[in-house]
Amino acid sequence: MNQLKKIEKLLKWSILFSCFISLKIFGQIQRVEPAFWYAGMHNPELQILFYGENIAENEVVVSNGIAIKAIQKTENPNYLFVTIDTKDVPAQELLFSFSKNKKVVFTKKYALKQRRENSALRKSYDASDMIYLLMPDRFANGNSKNDSQKTLAEKADRNNPSGRHGGDIAGIIQNLDYIQELGATALWSTPLCEDNDAQGSYHGYGQSDVYKIDPRYGTNEDYLKLSSELHKRNMKLIMDYVTNHWGAAHWMMKDLPTYDWIHQFPGYAQTNYRMTTQFDTNTSKIDAKMCVDGWFVQSMPDLNQSNPLVLNYLIQNAIWWIEYADLDGFRVDTYSYNDKEGIAKWTKAITDEYPNFNIVGEVWMQDQAQMAYWQKDSKIGAIQNYNSYLPSVMDFTLMDALAAVFNENQSTWDKGLMKIYNNFTNDFLYPNTNNIMTFAENHDTQRFNEIYKKDFKKYQMAMTLLATLRGIPQLYYGSEIGMAGNKNEGDGAIRLDFPGGWQGDSNNVFTKNGRTAQQQQFFDFTSELFQWRKTNEAVHFGKMTHYIPENNVYVYFRYTDKNAVMVIVNNGLNATVVEPKRFKENTKDFKSGKDVFSGKRIDLQHEFSIDAQSAFILELN
Amino acid sequence: MNQLKKIEKLLKWSILFSCFISLKIFGQIQRVEPAFWYAGMHNPELQILFYGENIAENEVVVSNGIAIKAIQKTENPNYLFVTIDTKDVPAQELLFSFSKNKKVVFTKKYALKQRRENSALRKSYDASDMIYLLMPDRFANGNSKNDSQKTLAEKADRNNPSGRHGGDIAGIIQNLDYIQELGATALWSTPLCEDNDAQGSYHGYGQSDVYKIDPRYGTNEDYLKLSSELHKRNMKLIMDYVTNHWGAAHWMMKDLPTYDWIHQFPGYAQTNYRMTTQFDTNTSKIDAKMCVDGWFVQSMPDLNQSNPLVLNYLIQNAIWWIEYADLDGFRVDTYSYNDKEGIAKWTKAITDEYPNFNIVGEVWMQDQAQMAYWQKDSKIGAIQNYNSYLPSVMDFTLMDALAAVFNENQSTWDKGLMKIYNNFTNDFLYPNTNNIMTFAENHDTQRFNEIYKKDFKKYQMAMTLLATLRGIPQLYYGSEIGMAGNKNEGDGAIRLDFPGGWQGDSNNVFTKNGRTAQQQQFFDFTSELFQWRKTNEAVHFGKMTHYIPENNVYVYFRYTDKNAVMVIVNNGLNATVVEPKRFKENTKDFKSGKDVFSGKRIDLQHEFSIDAQSAFILELN
Repeated sequence: MNQLKKIEKLLKWSILFSCFISLKIFGQIQRVEPAFWYAGMHNPELQILFYGENIAENEVVVSNGIAIKAIQKTENPNYLFVTIDTKDVPAQELLFSFSKNKKVVFTKKYALKQRRENSALRKSYDASDMIYLLMPDRFANGNSKNDSQKTLAEKADRNNPSGRHGGDIAGIIQNLDYIQELGATALWSTPLCEDNDAQGSYHGYGQSDVYKIDPRYGTNEDYLKLSSELHKRNMKLIMDYVTNHWGAAHWMMKDLPTYDWIHQFPGYAQTNYRMTTQFDTNTSKIDAKMCVDGWFVQSMPDLNQSNPLVLNYLIQNAIWWIEYADLDGFRVDTYSYNDKEGIAKWTKAITDEYPNFNIVGEVWMQDQAQMAYWQKDSKIGAIQNYNSYLPSVMDFTLMDALAAVFNENQSTWDKGLMKIYNNFTNDFLYPNTNNIMTFAENHDTQRFNEIYKKDFKKYQMAMTLLATLRGIPQLYYGSEIGMAGNKNEGDGAIRLDFPGGWQGDSNNVFTKNGRTAQQQQFFDFTSELFQWRKTNEAVHFGKMTHYIPENNVYVYFRYTDKNAVMVIVNNGLNATVVEPKRFKENTKDFKSGKDVFSGKRIDLQHEFSIDAQSAFILELN
Repeated sequence: MNQLKKIEKLLKWSILFSCFISLKIFGQIQRVEPAFWYAGMHNPELQILFYGENIAENEVVVSNGIAIKAIQKTENPNYLFVTIDTKDVPAQELLFSFSKNKKVVFTKKYALKQRRENSALRKSYDASDMIYLLMPDRFANGNSKNDSQKTLAEKADRNNPSGRHGGDIAGIIQNLDYIQELGATALWSTPLCEDNDAQGSYHGYGQSDVYKIDPRYGTNEDYLKLSSELHKRNMKLIMDYVTNHWGAAHWMMKDLPTYDWIHQFPGYAQTNYRMTTQFDTNTSKIDAKMCVDGWFVQSMPDLNQSNPLVLNYLIQNAIWWIEYADLDGFRVDTYSYNDKEGIAKWTKAITDEYPNFNIVGEVWMQDQAQMAYWQKDSKIGAIQNYNSYLPSVMDFTLMDALAAVFNENQSTWDKGLMKIYNNFTNDFLYPNTNNIMTFAENHDTQRFNEIYKKDFKKYQMAMTLLATLRGIPQLYYGSEIGMAGNKNEGDGAIRLDFPGGWQGDSNNVFTKNGRTAQQQQFFDFTSELFQWRKTNEAVHFGKMTHYIPENNVYVYFRYTDKNAVMVIVNNGLNATVVEPKRFKENTKDFKSGKDVFSGKRIDLQHEFSIDAQSAFILELN
């Protein structure tokens, strides 16, 4: 026993010692970000963050004759920002040498990788797409082994509406057939990077490592696989990018590179959420400052995009993901909460690098001029010499209208379908109406099927509008099977687990057999509608002409030189008669139109009747 | 008796004969419009309309070496439009000679009069003014002899809410002391020109002769007297001008100069009132056309401002009134219902002639970008290369907010005072925020004191806002004595006779003794507020800084380099405490402020309390 105890003691010491050694070695460079880069980028400057104890005390050189353009030190000696010029430098492995007193203390290999062919000119999502939005923790648990992780604070707990439920990338990949069958051509997943907040981390907006997929969702390689699986199907992957804030558990928060890396206050200071302060000529400076500098919530330190190091970090991180995961687009969270000039520079940098890359920003306003302000080349923004360079915004006023109109069945000056019509009367304010994301709901809003109590007719009308009005339609997971859930009970209620995504789910909507009759009704309609939408160019990029709603009936046309579509929505509680004469300007010489659902031809030379609360689409040909 | 009968017969014949003679003579020229003109106008071209039976058959020459630039005939031979060049022609009497077969058939004297000194550069109303809006038929009956007129269809009937009640120009002139005591510096009367509609003509918007004051209101000379009486008091006269339509009884309607003088349709066609069609890029052409070409109501033929003869008639008529009545400004009715290009030309022509002349257009929209579209040099209008040249618009969104906020006493995201605050967050959309008319109500809207049941506190808050926010405040007659009246019972109910305006009125609010205690309370507050307003430049043209309302309290500042005003409105149902620290950006080094009502000084170095539902103004000095 004594012998054994001695050996045990020795072993313990040896373990402790080797820990000490590795700490010493890895202490020299604990982080390199980005961990690698690509040769041949439009912007040849690459700023690499080296993190390690007192790393700033070292001299740095790089191999292969590469020029170091700048070495930036901050008040924190544990950081070094080294900028190299990669112009005309082919893909290769570089070596950074760190030396003190002219002696190399340690080195670090650094890969400049080959880009994919035509990477810079990659295409992106546009109005020909339909975007399926899901929350990965709540969609499907493809790998139950990764649900909890030793290194991460929050463990899986499906009984907690705000907890981690175990959904992951594997679950998404396994169900791409389902998503594709719906007619979706693009996938927007809410953030997948590591979020190590101790609670509520399932939404992923409080990231703790922006270079790493959260292990509970999978690995970086899994994310790359999701991308390539989508591409195999000719579908697109949209990353949910967060520039405004990180999570409190972000590794940098324990040892900030600079005091002003984040916005700091005596005590906690929350944003006032009044984004109007960003253009309001009457605003007090303090209100305008607190809007963008205040924190979104207490667990999300607010990043300072006016600090060039922060800004460049965010730019490079975004570009890194595009290259690494072969992304097709971004959705940017809380876009208008960022430093206004900083976010414009970020957006310009991304689109300078990828001229066709689409980015939709969350600009959540109740006023169209205010939303139009933020779209690239806006004439409204130009009033204040502002250009965000943001290609796409979200049509929140349309969402507001959709959330109200189908309970407003009376014909009045400004209620019911008039709200939809009115939304489009202001299209002239937007520099690019085709590049506006349209939606009935998302992960932050009341659920459509909750508002309308799963009324299938109302769902049909709303989806018909989204599928045929200008813009890029976005569908929120679950609505296609009639999913409801009341936001007033908490966000968990609008982010329920998708039925069938978990082993043992009694209701599995991924297969036809698993769906209830009602779910099947919703699914079939959605699928038929959006599969049809793929085939019709007029509803992608065609012009639009609409007519003032009369008697609760809204009629509009989408058309190109080659084909035309007539859409009729009757929001009234009674069947009514449509007199096609009024629409001669668009029906022109077309004698009839084909109903895309029934296939029946409708005679356009005589009046015809339309059911109460119904919508239909006629192809004119 | 036989002798007498013979004489009688002879007299009858002689009367008939002289009638015939005059008809013959005046038949040659029944109308000349404008009846006279002025020498030295900026635009030297004058187009005179001569109207008479087959007048177009004549040759025309003019005396004194004046050049006739154009003689325009129409499809109707009873009209001749003769354009002369008055460049460098001094004031004088001209003679037009009309000849047939080289024989002068008749002549017409025509006066080119001397303009008032500095007429072209006359000043106009602006944000230093407070405008009192009244309806002349309902304000005061100064001359009961003119209430009904043989030549005009509608006779006085005070029992009919939609009838003529007998108010007139004499009544206004007699009560200018009252209006002035209120603090008003400008008067906007609804139209005074002849409106010979058989019913409902009291509002005056269906004019039958736009060169003549309605005899039931007085004469053209009376109107001129009103103007000069106002000017004696350093007050201003604003004419309510109607370009969009005339009344069905307009003399021209019986014998139109051209078929397209008005918009004609098979049957009656009403405007759809959807003014958004005028900029909506998705609109159908037919909707856009019907908006401006359809008639406002059946009794008002819609003028075609795209016909140059119509346009020029309207331009000259407007200029004629400015010169004749020495006007200080226009309010233009239904501005955005006019032909869009036509009304821009009209507005430009007026302001080219009078560069400082202010014109406020009725552009009744629910969206600020849409209203801003119509203001001169609008960047929103410029998106479509449109410039209306209209100096001023009306703040209908502020009116909407004022009509709601004081019944919304809870602190929510977008209710209560937040609606007022929000209205000003969009000021950047307007090219000129100081030149926006602000108001709580007018003759077409629900009455403020009806909405709020004569709640004095709510009236105080609203008027304090109007007196101190940017823009030109307008007060609607009667509100200053707490007048209510429900629009839902008909327009007559919001256009009640002003108490004391009619002999025998038991309640005479024109004098202090005649007012009830409640009327006196309203009057005193209004008068004190707007008399104070005259004295403070900061609330006229000062900059504005406002703070996001907190706890139902809205705080803002108006300031120039010289002085500053702090306004505090508590819309909450409880007294609350204001902490001045938050407003340091504006309170600066001011240690205290003087309450303009109580004269008390408020210490700005410590928090202070403010009563529930109260507003006060502090002069910082």
